[in-house]
Amino acid sequence: MPSELLRALPDPASFTCPVPVPAHDRIVMGHGSGGRLSANLLRDVFLPRFSNPVLDRMDDQAVFAIGGSQVAFTTDSFVVQPLFFPGGDIGSLAVHGTVNDLAMSGAVPLYLSAAFIAEEGLPIGQLHRIAESMAEAAEAAGVLIVTGDTKVVERGKGDGLFINTTGIGIVPAGLRLSASEVRTGDLVILSGCIGDHGIAIMASRAGLEFETTIQSDSAPLHGLVAEMLAASRRIRCMRDPTRGGLSSSLNEIAAMSGVAIEIVEGRIPVRDEVRGACELLGLDPLYVANEGKLIAVVAPDAADEVLAAMRSHPLGRDAAVIGHALGGEPGLVTMKTAFGSTRIVELLPGDQLPRIC
Amino acid sequence: MPSELLRALPDPASFTCPVPVPAHDRIVMGHGSGGRLSANLLRDVFLPRFSNPVLDRMDDQAVFAIGGSQVAFTTDSFVVQPLFFPGGDIGSLAVHGTVNDLAMSGAVPLYLSAAFIAEEGLPIGQLHRIAESMAEAAEAAGVLIVTGDTKVVERGKGDGLFINTTGIGIVPAGLRLSASEVRTGDLVILSGCIGDHGIAIMASRAGLEFETTIQSDSAPLHGLVAEMLAASRRIRCMRDPTRGGLSSSLNEIAAMSGVAIEIVEGRIPVRDEVRGACELLGLDPLYVANEGKLIAVVAPDAADEVLAAMRSHPLGRDAAVIGHALGGEPGLVTMKTAFGSTRIVELLPGDQLPRIC
Repeated sequence: MPSELLRALPDPASFTCPVPVPAHDRIVMGHGSGGRLSANLLRDVFLPRFSNPVLDRMDDQAVFAIGGSQVAFTTDSFVVQPLFFPGGDIGSLAVHGTVNDLAMSGAVPLYLSAAFIAEEGLPIGQLHRIAESMAEAAEAAGVLIVTGDTKVVERGKGDGLFINTTGIGIVPAGLRLSASEVRTGDLVILSGCIGDHGIAIMASRAGLEFETTIQSDSAPLHGLVAEMLAASRRIRCMRDPTRGGLSSSLNEIAAMSGVAIEIVEGRIPVRDEVRGACELLGLDPLYVANEGKLIAVVAPDAADEVLAAMRSHPLGRDAAVIGHALGGEPGLVTMKTAFGSTRIVELLPGDQLPRIC
Repeated sequence: MPSELLRALPDPASFTCPVPVPAHDRIVMGHGSGGRLSANLLRDVFLPRFSNPVLDRMDDQAVFAIGGSQVAFTTDSFVVQPLFFPGGDIGSLAVHGTVNDLAMSGAVPLYLSAAFIAEEGLPIGQLHRIAESMAEAAEAAGVLIVTGDTKVVERGKGDGLFINTTGIGIVPAGLRLSASEVRTGDLVILSGCIGDHGIAIMASRAGLEFETTIQSDSAPLHGLVAEMLAASRRIRCMRDPTRGGLSSSLNEIAAMSGVAIEIVEGRIPVRDEVRGACELLGLDPLYVANEGKLIAVVAPDAADEVLAAMRSHPLGRDAAVIGHALGGEPGLVTMKTAFGSTRIVELLPGDQLPRIC
């Protein structure tokens, strides 16, 4: 297992120490990592030009008013390889990913668009399976796919299939979840074990689907979120730690809220099998993608209620308080390790697991 | 010019006679043509699985109610090659294309998402230019880009850059533009010359940018639409004839409304230079893409007002009544030719101009 997995790993660079990121004049894989290079691209290319008050909030979804309703709006393209993996496929992932980005604002997801870029030669049977999987995922999540688009590119100019889903949901009246709401003293809750999706994809790339029982955790989180909000409205913000893993979500929240965040390694749930695969590969589970987990930052006095609501939901059974916001260096994320030391949790500088979603 | 343009033409198949379309078990370029194969893929793969009342209306955009407002929602991915062409680039095109799909419902476009799939190696300078162009196009069209996503694929698994834009707009109260509203006797108005975008892209592929003055007509149409609706609400439906050209839009309207449509060749405005290029290449302008034109089907007694409003707008100067809906075979589109005969205007069976948008 280790050697096969190692072959599947494109860039086993160390990511636990702060590595200076060189300037690039061309796109490299790391620009799609959800880590440091992605953030740089956003900061240098897109944000200065597209800047407006809705975009500049920099949450996982835009929220704006239409006819007295607060509408959440979010987009994601999916370029995962392989198209089919243990626990899902690009179709179900494309539905869950966008449903979850809506859910992180507290929104009830309602409508999705679905846009396909197919490579010449893609077996139409695969497209049938993927469409079926999208339809099932949409029905299970209670969303309608209401508009779409299909483009085709020549063989060698794509990679089987890319899917974009863009979603619309309605945020409950008066609710405002945003990283900018986080305050010193707030607690950080994680909904369950991390790393399953990333390791399932890597095992699948290495042809190990039948040697490991790790499945992607791809799942729609809006039901869990609804239970949490029913328990308490004193949730500050939520994030689903996908690309770039838990580290990216925590760094984003810390950067936007201007607090420091400290997490405790021993409190972060990781399956033994995922931990084992990560150790063998020199991967840190903090950087591995999830597709059915969330972190919530909550007011200290609301944590018990929110945690209880999460644990009573199938997707939050293993929920745990993993850390807190504190008045340290603004934007800094640190972790108390199992050995009692404290280390900085950086944004991923490169791209350890390309095309994970 | 002819030989270079011919080299740029991937499939000079005849498209003016009804060619039977073979069944495919793999995706071919024609599945992205906006013609017959695209329609088949939609019918066979997507519609049966995603079916719902909003999607099944099959207009260029979904329309649904949120908080008392009628919201229009539409998505398009852009895979045009080259990324930069006379009259625009993939960025401005991605803004105009989605603004126009919203405008065809009569909606005022408000918000866009922008999702990028970049190929490893794309010069970041190109991304800067494209982002700049998107920002300018968005500002000119009065829309905000409020959320986004960037993915990267390995060299050889993409083609420089693909962009998805998905848009939200508000349809004026009481307005319902839909192909299903078209009635026998209605008139078909075209806003201007056809074929400019497709021929500009082809010339650009052949390296002829400096030998021809043909520019893409890429432009946002919502201003023109607002003028038309101010003149009369008796517009039944609108379409922007992009991929698959005028023929696709007319066939879609005829199929969905159950009327027949007859157009008159001599009334369809085509620039001499575009006509010349088409003749040399054996292309029919009816099948060549436009990115700044619309067709409107209007009640007969509203045609004069709508036409006058169009002609007073810079993007509708050459507007003309080009045909009418009649009680012939439902779904059939025919054209009275310059020679006095009548021919059937089929959906494009193959893909004469791949990756035009």
